[in-house]
Amino acid sequence: MSSTPEYRRYVAINTEDRSLSIEQEPVPVPAPGEVLIKVYAAGLNRADLLQRKGLYPPPADASPIMGLEVAGEVLTVGTDVSNWQVGDKICALTHGGGYADCTVAPVSQCLPIPAGFSMTEAAALPEALLTVWHNIFQRAALQAGEKVLIHGGASGIGTLGIAICRALGGEVYTTAGTDKKCQALQKLGATRAINYKTEDFEQVITELELKDKINVILDMAGGDFIQKNINIAAPEGRIVYIAFIRGARAEVNFAPLLMKRLTITGSTLRAQNFAQKAVMVEEILEHIYPHLEGGTIRPIVDRVFPLNEVEQAHAHMQSGQHMGKIILEM
Amino acid sequence: MSSTPEYRRYVAINTEDRSLSIEQEPVPVPAPGEVLIKVYAAGLNRADLLQRKGLYPPPADASPIMGLEVAGEVLTVGTDVSNWQVGDKICALTHGGGYADCTVAPVSQCLPIPAGFSMTEAAALPEALLTVWHNIFQRAALQAGEKVLIHGGASGIGTLGIAICRALGGEVYTTAGTDKKCQALQKLGATRAINYKTEDFEQVITELELKDKINVILDMAGGDFIQKNINIAAPEGRIVYIAFIRGARAEVNFAPLLMKRLTITGSTLRAQNFAQKAVMVEEILEHIYPHLEGGTIRPIVDRVFPLNEVEQAHAHMQSGQHMGKIILEM
Repeated sequence: MSSTPEYRRYVAINTEDRSLSIEQEPVPVPAPGEVLIKVYAAGLNRADLLQRKGLYPPPADASPIMGLEVAGEVLTVGTDVSNWQVGDKICALTHGGGYADCTVAPVSQCLPIPAGFSMTEAAALPEALLTVWHNIFQRAALQAGEKVLIHGGASGIGTLGIAICRALGGEVYTTAGTDKKCQALQKLGATRAINYKTEDFEQVITELELKDKINVILDMAGGDFIQKNINIAAPEGRIVYIAFIRGARAEVNFAPLLMKRLTITGSTLRAQNFAQKAVMVEEILEHIYPHLEGGTIRPIVDRVFPLNEVEQAHAHMQSGQHMGKIILEM
Repeated sequence: MSSTPEYRRYVAINTEDRSLSIEQEPVPVPAPGEVLIKVYAAGLNRADLLQRKGLYPPPADASPIMGLEVAGEVLTVGTDVSNWQVGDKICALTHGGGYADCTVAPVSQCLPIPAGFSMTEAAALPEALLTVWHNIFQRAALQAGEKVLIHGGASGIGTLGIAICRALGGEVYTTAGTDKKCQALQKLGATRAINYKTEDFEQVITELELKDKINVILDMAGGDFIQKNINIAAPEGRIVYIAFIRGARAEVNFAPLLMKRLTITGSTLRAQNFAQKAVMVEEILEHIYPHLEGGTIRPIVDRVFPLNEVEQAHAHMQSGQHMGKIILEM
């Protein structure tokens, strides 16, 4: 069992040139309802890159340090904490602060390490699990037997989303930017992966005779994808946005929304309160953990960087070459 | 009790010049699950005007005659009909065919005449009741205490929608095209009615400190209203479209959809199946009928035209001068 250190190493952002450096500061004391975690591995997210640029400021009550998810060992527990004990191995959605060798997290956002998972694999789980569960299952209510299209299939959220939708009975279609990624995503369970750089996904879906038959669409692209999503969605189809990488602005013909009774919605995870996330965690434990521990769902870890190579890790994500999660190890 | 006639009078559309005339044809025989109704009054809807122009063709299994709602007396019942008897007074959502002195309707779309209602008032109910219930309560799930904005407040759907939302605990805002209509809608229960021709509703809502606080929006306008609706909606707000009178096409910035976790959806009533409408009817009987029979909700009848003045009735609706329902009496 590890002892609690006095200082922690964390990744600081230079506010002038937005460069990164490893700094030291005193270890935080967990507030009531929080645990202090010795971090072994932290997951990278696109939100980190935005936060670094100053484009996605953390909520007022959140840690200003980057990093939304970690895996590690409980070092100390705050008051009112009864379900986790010192020494427990957990993964957690942090309220910021994951890019550090020691961090706090609310207990409602902590999950056990699934049996058979390494710390590195477990650090790839929280953000993707909660994002997929909330958007595809809570907001879009995907049902077994329905058809789901997941854009950005090669991302951490995309790869885990494909595996989860398949495991829970969905028929999965996806898009990615290279043929190699598309082949890998078909191996992962997608019925058809579409290379959006060489193919028009609306056209491919139409050729597959699936126009007006896609029940749920998870999109982080937006822009010109918005109209195409509306065009291919099934009656009572649900389209959910988690980002607008291709742009939040588009000229759209909404007529099919009415005729097909579509629902267009979206969310960011971070803006939601602890109670909402606690419900997600409970449902994930019930519906997804059996598949993680049974081996039918496994996150894909693209590459692991040591903490002091965080600049290289960011550059790798920015390049878009990765498939699955990029992880920092402490 | 009325006897079943051999022929019925109905409104025919001249396919050349789209003019209307009163014609005669044999009375239809109710199919299993249908009743034959001697019609006393029929409600006008904007959809009728579109159908007349050839822009809203009826579904393949529907009557090609205009008219989506009637009130009258049951003349004969089809096989499998046990809940209605010859002589019962009912109002009904037809599957087309309301512009006639005798028509059929599926029993799942028949409702009793609320106690104290005339046939003319009852003919104003079915389309507006089902549209309001389905969109504001089933799709948008308006809760007591929430704020709802109803565009087109002076329409048949708008006026009944305002009364229903108020009766079920909503705080109602609305838009209309004249100050006189706005005053009437405030008397009907709207906290504030906005004249959209002289005021910008987004600006008024902002001045009232209600920006980001409108939980549900029912819109039949679209066009430039689409962005404004998104801008004023509360976190987890629901925006529901039932038409796009100002246009189905718009350039939209969807960023607030994500940040506020909005839901944009819409529907047409006619495209939905009998089972879906039967659920609406059951819920309306439970939740709205007590308010109709208790007198807290009353439809507003704008003007009544005899059947042979159907051209004038259409012209009156086209002019947009009306407030509440326009009714044809047979």
